[in-house]
Amino acid sequence: MKEWEHLTSVEEMEAATAALLETGKKVGADSWQQRVKNQTPHCGFGEAGTCCRICSMGPCRITPKAPRGICGCDVHGIVGRNYLRFTAGGAATHSDHGRSICHTLYATREGGNYQVKDPEKLKRIAKEWGIETEGKDIYDLAHEVAETGLMEYGKPFGTQRFLKRAPESRQKIWHEAGIEPRAIDREVSQSMHMTHMGCSSLPEALIRQSLRAGLSDGWGGSMMGTEFSDVLFGTPKPVDTEANIGVMEKDMVNIIVHGHDPSLSEMIVFYAQDPEMIALAKAEGAKGINVAGVCCTSNEVAMRHGIPMAGNFLQQENVVLTGACEAIVVDVQCIFPALGPLSKCFHTKFITTSPIARMPDSDFIEFHEDSAGENAKAIVKMAVENFKNRKAELVNIPQLKQKATVGYSVEAIKKCLDGVTNSHVDALGTTKPLIDCVKAGVLRGAVAMVGCNNPKIRPDTAHIELMKKLLKNDIILIVSGCSAQAAAKAGLMDKRAAQYCGEGLKRVCKLVDIPPVLHMGSCVDISRMMVLAADIAKDWGIDIAQVPVVGCAPEWMSEKAVSIGNYVVATGIDTFLGVNPYTKGSTEVEGLLQGSIRDWVGANFTVELDIEKMGDLMVEAIEEKRKALNI
Amino acid sequence: MKEWEHLTSVEEMEAATAALLETGKKVGADSWQQRVKNQTPHCGFGEAGTCCRICSMGPCRITPKAPRGICGCDVHGIVGRNYLRFTAGGAATHSDHGRSICHTLYATREGGNYQVKDPEKLKRIAKEWGIETEGKDIYDLAHEVAETGLMEYGKPFGTQRFLKRAPESRQKIWHEAGIEPRAIDREVSQSMHMTHMGCSSLPEALIRQSLRAGLSDGWGGSMMGTEFSDVLFGTPKPVDTEANIGVMEKDMVNIIVHGHDPSLSEMIVFYAQDPEMIALAKAEGAKGINVAGVCCTSNEVAMRHGIPMAGNFLQQENVVLTGACEAIVVDVQCIFPALGPLSKCFHTKFITTSPIARMPDSDFIEFHEDSAGENAKAIVKMAVENFKNRKAELVNIPQLKQKATVGYSVEAIKKCLDGVTNSHVDALGTTKPLIDCVKAGVLRGAVAMVGCNNPKIRPDTAHIELMKKLLKNDIILIVSGCSAQAAAKAGLMDKRAAQYCGEGLKRVCKLVDIPPVLHMGSCVDISRMMVLAADIAKDWGIDIAQVPVVGCAPEWMSEKAVSIGNYVVATGIDTFLGVNPYTKGSTEVEGLLQGSIRDWVGANFTVELDIEKMGDLMVEAIEEKRKALNI
Repeated sequence: MKEWEHLTSVEEMEAATAALLETGKKVGADSWQQRVKNQTPHCGFGEAGTCCRICSMGPCRITPKAPRGICGCDVHGIVGRNYLRFTAGGAATHSDHGRSICHTLYATREGGNYQVKDPEKLKRIAKEWGIETEGKDIYDLAHEVAETGLMEYGKPFGTQRFLKRAPESRQKIWHEAGIEPRAIDREVSQSMHMTHMGCSSLPEALIRQSLRAGLSDGWGGSMMGTEFSDVLFGTPKPVDTEANIGVMEKDMVNIIVHGHDPSLSEMIVFYAQDPEMIALAKAEGAKGINVAGVCCTSNEVAMRHGIPMAGNFLQQENVVLTGACEAIVVDVQCIFPALGPLSKCFHTKFITTSPIARMPDSDFIEFHEDSAGENAKAIVKMAVENFKNRKAELVNIPQLKQKATVGYSVEAIKKCLDGVTNSHVDALGTTKPLIDCVKAGVLRGAVAMVGCNNPKIRPDTAHIELMKKLLKNDIILIVSGCSAQAAAKAGLMDKRAAQYCGEGLKRVCKLVDIPPVLHMGSCVDISRMMVLAADIAKDWGIDIAQVPVVGCAPEWMSEKAVSIGNYVVATGIDTFLGVNPYTKGSTEVEGLLQGSIRDWVGANFTVELDIEKMGDLMVEAIEEKRKALNI
Repeated sequence: MKEWEHLTSVEEMEAATAALLETGKKVGADSWQQRVKNQTPHCGFGEAGTCCRICSMGPCRITPKAPRGICGCDVHGIVGRNYLRFTAGGAATHSDHGRSICHTLYATREGGNYQVKDPEKLKRIAKEWGIETEGKDIYDLAHEVAETGLMEYGKPFGTQRFLKRAPESRQKIWHEAGIEPRAIDREVSQSMHMTHMGCSSLPEALIRQSLRAGLSDGWGGSMMGTEFSDVLFGTPKPVDTEANIGVMEKDMVNIIVHGHDPSLSEMIVFYAQDPEMIALAKAEGAKGINVAGVCCTSNEVAMRHGIPMAGNFLQQENVVLTGACEAIVVDVQCIFPALGPLSKCFHTKFITTSPIARMPDSDFIEFHEDSAGENAKAIVKMAVENFKNRKAELVNIPQLKQKATVGYSVEAIKKCLDGVTNSHVDALGTTKPLIDCVKAGVLRGAVAMVGCNNPKIRPDTAHIELMKKLLKNDIILIVSGCSAQAAAKAGLMDKRAAQYCGEGLKRVCKLVDIPPVLHMGSCVDISRMMVLAADIAKDWGIDIAQVPVVGCAPEWMSEKAVSIGNYVVATGIDTFLGVNPYTKGSTEVEGLLQGSIRDWVGANFTVELDIEKMGDLMVEAIEEKRKALNI
């Protein structure tokens, strides 16, 4: 059998994109590919992190002849401040998404737009937080838990509740390093304060706060976002779906959901199945309504409903370029403002819904928890009624798609592992079978691959090539975000992809009946990975930093990714980045991030732009952890 | 009499600085004057606000050939986002200072380091907030109020408590404009979220959030900072002091306090008066201990204790250059990292005390609420013991200082006005006598002059020249921050400066026994001005936007100043800036800020770099308000 023959190659994806860009040219559309050309080369100061615009005495830029800003801040202080602000932007963003989920949970009611779909999970979290569950109405409990969750953003005293999920050794490390996060928003505000003109310029202090702000995201806002989304919309379990641009349907009304917050997309998915809407679609001449996703919203609805994934971050323009997109409905984050003018070149409705993400050239239909049903129905209707405006001559849906099994929440993974547990000997619901495989060497370890696309990297190549290499080395992948979609589009989430793995991993996949790349969700769902790592460490009786697992964001682009990097590293997991986080300009900041923070938290960053090398380094890192464990 | 003859001119101040820079040269010291030269010209993209570094696909810069960033964001979105982030930085910083004051209030106890000095004010605030005061121990009440204050940072629901201080008309405007601030930190986090990659790019949405974030500062964090500082350290009342570099004492141990948070400086002032410390100073050969201030810390201790003011923002290096500074003790904000290397050229100890503001080349003595006494004593002792290390040949204290009367809190102003109220006819404790003067035209109106220095403006010139012009026009000045110090150094806070005013204002000053420029405090104390404006509007029965008052920050440089600008404008007060807030690049953003936000809040910004013109515009604006009121 030819290697990787069932997979979709990056070349095939690029050919599809090229065809779509041809359509774009016809209608005078702009594209990110063109804008990258216009914006190249980038400013060297900005890329190195050595430009400061924090007060209006400047901007100041550091050069050999101007080694300090006007205030006297040196290059290390400037790069460090920029890094902390970048992190704070990401932590605030993820966490504000989590806050919105808390508010949605607070708005649940019997028979309402939003209901509790996983009461067991709600009760589990309530117990974990010391909230009485006995004899309580489930909605009263939901509101109490939601309010307690909201307080995690602003409580005057104490640290994040979910920190207690980590092994004690890790909690101790956080305490001793002084990076236990307090109220989430306080960490964001304090980060802004520390980086204000005339505050911190000591790299050590700035990087320490970066870790702390990151932790407030990963073990705070993001974790609540994930957990309460499960309570609201169901905890994901394995489900089959398809991925790539070919999931769009020529004869159906195509509604693309894009963004991050499932409170919107869940409602769209629901109303797209409304018989009234389907009848309307048919009356308009369509065969029905097809909802597909882009970016993390896609991950959310794929994991819970098997909704197909049309593409990841750098393909968001592609869905419009098919000429077959009736509406692209967005909530928050990673949405190209380019979709505004682009949609005007086609019949596509670009519908913004959140006060957090207002964009020019869009139809704004504000989405409220209490009118979510109406709002969603209005949006679906608008899309359906737009079907007739499609220009047949512009329609081109490249026939590229792959099958994928998605939905591997921690609960789902444990359930899979239960299937290979001898329940007469061992307890169910643990990660022990996985640990045994790792100890035995059948699996060498795991890589958590996450993050976006970035034009600085040939799109999806790093994700896919790294995955292929790791699978060959019997390293299992847990993935999320746009990395997950790269895997799905390539075909690596098809269970048949087990054939491309090393012998050990192949056996594990067959035995447990899983694909070798496990889809754990959206970018806030990296918190699932933290919970999994914590559970493995606890089941194993070691610290997280000892587990043979590393993190990797080879094509990241957003502030959220840097916030994630900070909490993954602070959790004790070495993290590999394929794009530099604007820190090249400071040996001290890079010395901390890529070096001595290991003394604080037992892990650090590696920035490696050569993907081949990065793969080797990750395999090495895992083998080193094994060696240290004598396995 | 020669005009302005008793005042210290900017030329005299510059000559003093020049002499100090000579000393600097001798010891190889760097200076901001030199660094400005090194950093000129500034990056045109940064200055226009047209550079985006919010994700790692960039940085992107807008040019005619590259009209959009890689994500497709246009110049208006980029400038708007940068403006909102700038505001968020300022709001977070001010408010985090306020939070620290809340924590200090929470730490008060009978006989402790921190005590309640103004129990009446505490009770007044408690009542305003609906907290029961009757029969409660004052420290129990303090803790309850502090905790309620801390909740204003993070409460899940509702808007800021102090908004109710505004006239009802103003509250209605805020509500209708959708800019009533919720929890302070939430507004900061949401601002970061809105400006994250792929979120808001619509200028209107970004500017609306800027106003909201600003209001969370001015009517939230800053107001609590001010009010609780008064509770802790006493509400300022008129007190005499001196200002300018000549307040340093050749034969004494000179301790300079610099920064913003009075929790530190109050303790330093206290321990510098400790007989044990004074005896130690004498044993070391000094005549005693002289504490003087720089920047807003100086305003805080001047207003409450008459501690002299050694200088404002751009003179912070000067105090070290005198060669007579034993220690410069700093807390947070506006502290030049340059003080680190500069202090190494002299015997000066540069002592950092806050985890929020860590700097290289400093001695870090962490200041805790519970060990504040010890910490302060250790710092004073370190300074005293450093006296002997002074190098006589480097000592040069320019003999430049002026007398000033400071301490005009709202309470103090009302008390002054009570002195001219006929208590048989009118109620005491109102602003009515002031309103009568304005109505009569004896006073034309008021200007709130605030903000920093910025090397882009010849230091202090704009502050002083504008004040002189306004005084001549019978416009009274209320001032704070570095603007206040500029006035004090020039001599405009000496009651004798009344002689330089127009006839009406001169009469008012004599009658009420005040200087024509009223020192209202530090930069968080601009909240005092908001309370004053609100009280005037309520006493008058009109909205704040109708009161003949404008705001002005002619030499501003920090993010805090932009946050302030947003809340002052949102409060209905037209605001004049002498430095552009990095918005030149967008006609839409400037069109909102300098134009159409007037439709939302009844006021807007004017950016005017020509000081002469700015003065004329302010006089005009005040006269227009008068005309509209038919007075």
